[in-house]
Amino acid sequence: MDRFEHLYSDMAKRVKPSDVREILKLMQDPEIISFAGGMPNPDTFPVAAIKEIAIRVLEDSPVTTLQYGTTEGYNPLRETMAEYMSSQRVDCSIDNVLIMSGATQAIALTAELFLDNGATVLTESPTFLAGLICFRNYGARIIGLGMDDDGVRADLLEEKLRALAKQEMCPTLFYTIPNFQNPTGVTLSESRRRRIVDLANEFDFIVLEDDPYCHLRFEGEHIRPIKSFDDSGRVIYTSSFSKILSPGMRLGWTVADAELTRKLALLKQTSDVSTNVFSQRIANEYVKGKYFERQLPIIKEIYGRKQKIMLSALERYFPESARWTRPKGGMFLWVELQRNIDTKAMFPKAIERKVAYVQGSCFFPDDSGKNTMRLNFTHPADEKIDEGIRRLGSLIDAEMKASSA
Amino acid sequence: MDRFEHLYSDMAKRVKPSDVREILKLMQDPEIISFAGGMPNPDTFPVAAIKEIAIRVLEDSPVTTLQYGTTEGYNPLRETMAEYMSSQRVDCSIDNVLIMSGATQAIALTAELFLDNGATVLTESPTFLAGLICFRNYGARIIGLGMDDDGVRADLLEEKLRALAKQEMCPTLFYTIPNFQNPTGVTLSESRRRRIVDLANEFDFIVLEDDPYCHLRFEGEHIRPIKSFDDSGRVIYTSSFSKILSPGMRLGWTVADAELTRKLALLKQTSDVSTNVFSQRIANEYVKGKYFERQLPIIKEIYGRKQKIMLSALERYFPESARWTRPKGGMFLWVELQRNIDTKAMFPKAIERKVAYVQGSCFFPDDSGKNTMRLNFTHPADEKIDEGIRRLGSLIDAEMKASSA
Repeated sequence: MDRFEHLYSDMAKRVKPSDVREILKLMQDPEIISFAGGMPNPDTFPVAAIKEIAIRVLEDSPVTTLQYGTTEGYNPLRETMAEYMSSQRVDCSIDNVLIMSGATQAIALTAELFLDNGATVLTESPTFLAGLICFRNYGARIIGLGMDDDGVRADLLEEKLRALAKQEMCPTLFYTIPNFQNPTGVTLSESRRRRIVDLANEFDFIVLEDDPYCHLRFEGEHIRPIKSFDDSGRVIYTSSFSKILSPGMRLGWTVADAELTRKLALLKQTSDVSTNVFSQRIANEYVKGKYFERQLPIIKEIYGRKQKIMLSALERYFPESARWTRPKGGMFLWVELQRNIDTKAMFPKAIERKVAYVQGSCFFPDDSGKNTMRLNFTHPADEKIDEGIRRLGSLIDAEMKASSA
Repeated sequence: MDRFEHLYSDMAKRVKPSDVREILKLMQDPEIISFAGGMPNPDTFPVAAIKEIAIRVLEDSPVTTLQYGTTEGYNPLRETMAEYMSSQRVDCSIDNVLIMSGATQAIALTAELFLDNGATVLTESPTFLAGLICFRNYGARIIGLGMDDDGVRADLLEEKLRALAKQEMCPTLFYTIPNFQNPTGVTLSESRRRRIVDLANEFDFIVLEDDPYCHLRFEGEHIRPIKSFDDSGRVIYTSSFSKILSPGMRLGWTVADAELTRKLALLKQTSDVSTNVFSQRIANEYVKGKYFERQLPIIKEIYGRKQKIMLSALERYFPESARWTRPKGGMFLWVELQRNIDTKAMFPKAIERKVAYVQGSCFFPDDSGKNTMRLNFTHPADEKIDEGIRRLGSLIDAEMKASSA
């Protein structure tokens, strides 16, 4: 019993610990091969570059580095990100850019800006767990939309919007991860990106384009962001330095309509005043000083290799009835097992066999997808991937036998 | 006109740019002597220590420094702060400590935890502007309580609580800055600290003890925190590294009941996942490695000296009718001018004379205090303080003459 429950806000009453995070906390055993997390591989951290830059910014201009920064962000970094976004065919200037304490802050502040208890949010189904939790905390009703190999189905989005409009319901927000989506790894096609902007204009909603994996493409052609098709300022774009520099630095950015940017800045001001300035300066030098240009191929090589190892292990050890995605980038694979396998019920047995994954159901707004799982291929060591998939494959075989017995 | 107004949440509709922050933004003229900000003096930044530690943590354990951290904070730093708080007679362990992205985040998350639209918050009057803005954003009704040289008047607090109880109204939160309060500089007496805890127990509310200036005492005896008298877990204590290490690093901490700590951590998780790990490691080494012990006397010496310069300039240049506080620490002085002087109306004339302050009225929940101002003595250079107060004194003289003419 919580002694202070009666004093809590409505939001605080809704907030609950997530099953998955609790599970991850229990997983301290170093013998467990974990495909469960969503962490970058430490081999991708540009340690030498960070050290070099950290020393330089402390020596050259310690006051700027250590004093309070503005809420909007360190201007040279805003400028750098505005230039980068322009290269992505996004029409923007520094006034459209905010530096965030990670892309998660961008999701939280967008939720704060648009969601009241009872608001309707549309998401991909499955989608990013922390996004779901955030929208639920704000009391939103979440409607998930099915996906295929080209990402979320724009036809289902339109259908749902028309059905809601008939009931005089207007969703406020559509949340999407267009590239190498978490958890499925699939990428939204260009034609659907255009279509989403058209629908946002027609049905008067905001699109939150969450794009933390955009740089991690191992193969195929880069697709321009949804934001680049946005001519009415309805798309809020966010991305992150977590996968290309360091997640511990908590750095992300948004690009949005100038009015929305001002509003987000006001919310950020109350939230944490500004993003860590030391880290912003490191990130700026990292991108401007060409360190990033040198580091990115290394990161992609490591992740591409790990994904290949996982894909061939899946071929080898997983049953014929299993289906999985073959993403062209990112950090995750998505597996669908035969219908009667419950990956949540199976999880403790996986831990017994010293292997971990995330049960797919937690990524679905409606808790469906009982027979699915998310596998992370970026964090485990190369030599562990094959062994981990072998353990998992043999467990699934055992489950299938037991269920057909 | 804001094109997206109709899509905003109720909170977003309430959020407005603050007059003061807009004023501060306009003050780019380097000839202006500013007593307006609330910034530490860069001479207090331990640049060499930060550089030394930054290199060390990146060399010794780059992965811990750069990888995702836990929401609760970097455990060695939590441990360090738990030890420090124990030395302040606060009964706590690591489970009571959260590392925050600045104390402002602690205020924001406490508001999120307890405040719904229409909740009642009690504050000192005047009080910290960002606190007021935050509580207003959450739609709270704010009731200010008068202060004297011993801080907020506990008798007025009790009176107000009894009056509210008769109307069956229960305030949820009492917000106080016990040491060298922003904006007045006054310190809450020990007996009132005890009394506040008793009242919180009797009237079932939460106390948010915001203590960013505790280390900055130039004279007199340290008074133990309100939290140290708390035997029922109703006090949430927060403090900050902004004034003793670097504000740009955005680091603070909370000490609270374990249940409240868990709840705050869940809210923080959605808000920004975790605090910047690199900075947390620097802060931990700074405190554990005795750098802080060496730096603190330097900081206090600088601020004590600047305050003395300001106090003697006030004696010299301000009219006899003016009253001001003589704080034993902190960063601010509070000035009360004769009743017919309006410091808000006077402000543009101050800017013409190249001197700036903050009008006192913005610190009052009810916008009173028209004849008051806050002066910051920590940021301006020593030689500018006397000159700035001279300019201000002559402006006030001119205003007084004009008003009596």
